Amino acid sequence: MKAKVLNPGPERTIALVFDKDDEVIATLQRFATEHELVASRFTAIGALSGAVLGYFDWDRKAYDRIPVDEQVEVLSLIGDIALDGTQPRAHAHAVLGRRDGSTVGGHLLVATVRPTLEVILVESPSYLVKRCDPESGLALIEIGA
Amino acid sequence: MKAKVLNPGPERTIALVFDKDDEVIATLQRFATEHELVASRFTAIGALSGAVLGYFDWDRKAYDRIPVDEQVEVLSLIGDIALDGTQPRAHAHAVLGRRDGSTVGGHLLVATVRPTLEVILVESPSYLVKRCDPESGLALIEIGA
Amino acid sequence: MKAKVLNPGPERTIALVFDKDDEVIATLQRFATEHELVASRFTAIGALSGAVLGYFDWDRKAYDRIPVDEQVEVLSLIGDIALDGTQPRAHAHAVLGRRDGSTVGGHLLVATVRPTLEVILVESPSYLVKRCDPESGLALIEIGA
Repeated sequence: MKAKVLNPGPERTIALVFDKDDEVIATLQRFATEHELVASRFTAIGALSGAVLGYFDWDRKAYDRIPVDEQVEVLSLIGDIALDGTQPRAHAHAVLGRRDGSTVGGHLLVATVRPTLEVILVESPSYLVKRCDPESGLALIEIGA
Repeated sequence: MKAKVLNPGPERTIALVFDKDDEVIATLQRFATEHELVASRFTAIGALSGAVLGYFDWDRKAYDRIPVDEQVEVLSLIGDIALDGTQPRAHAHAVLGRRDGSTVGGHLLVATVRPTLEVILVESPSYLVKRCDPESGLALIEIGA
Repeated sequence: MKAKVLNPGPERTIALVFDKDDEVIATLQRFATEHELVASRFTAIGALSGAVLGYFDWDRKAYDRIPVDEQVEVLSLIGDIALDGTQPRAHAHAVLGRRDGSTVGGHLLVATVRPTLEVILVESPSYLVKRCDPESGLALIEIGA
């Protein structure tokens, strides 16, 4: 395990309120690009008209897709935004709630907001950088020695 | 999606430790009223002797009620407190864990603590205001243009 | 419910990136000991090769063990680190996601990382202290009168 202090300077807290039909990952990454975010984390609650979740298959080294084709509550959405090359890349995991209270969750690939998603994003002055992990093939946050 | 910076000034972090039989939403809103909180967010873990969760029925524009009548772990509780008129209103989503590890989740309507709930609340100096969304009928956070 | 302000002084945000095969609770507590953390909270996402979750049986006043013997996504991991005597003690609840998107959750007893776990830890200057709660027998955070 490696550690890095993210706030040698002040952090900025931003409320992001998504509108109906916003796609979550693309909207987060566009915001991060426009505001030059280099290391952020977020939590969110809200609701979706649908989503595609992912499960990382360790043998295939690829995500299985889990479609969620119904109105669901976003019970928890936790994630971070780090730099992959020069591009901000959002990494988020979600737990979604169905009509009967049962839950479905995974790595968030695609999600369509309805009626809203309330995101609290904290932006740090430090950099977090992703590098391809040779064993998994995934772009993981790398903290230098 | 709209954005608002929440910390033009310093934020305050407060640990709230709930006692057995405290009701979560009422206790949070009373604390927010007494301390004049205008924009806060929180995460929590703990356990409950019971709860009522909600699922927003998009067709009816109302919450279905999902009663949880057993001792459950609070696996995640994420939420915010914003102003609805002059009153602080807590909005929280929960994932609860049963004896066999299965989960049930939703919008938190009512929850009774047992034995404790550990809440980390961060209070911001900015205002977050709720307005009735005409399409859903819900009081959603509105960030002005 | 009792409340305590955690940041009379500045807080420190630290990104912890776990490596494959790190055990989560032991690694967190070792980090807290080495860095003399007295009141911290964290959120995390990532994936595990396996875990043991707990459900607190209110009648027996002890944790049932729920083994999870498969590769799972860490959909949410929320917790805090407080002092139990002079020792930092991590308390964390997790929601884990299986291949089909179904979830399992509980109090995190043991968890083995694969390939990574991204933890955002915020360290406060205030103390949070655990004391044995006579009714439950659990070490709960106590905020003095």
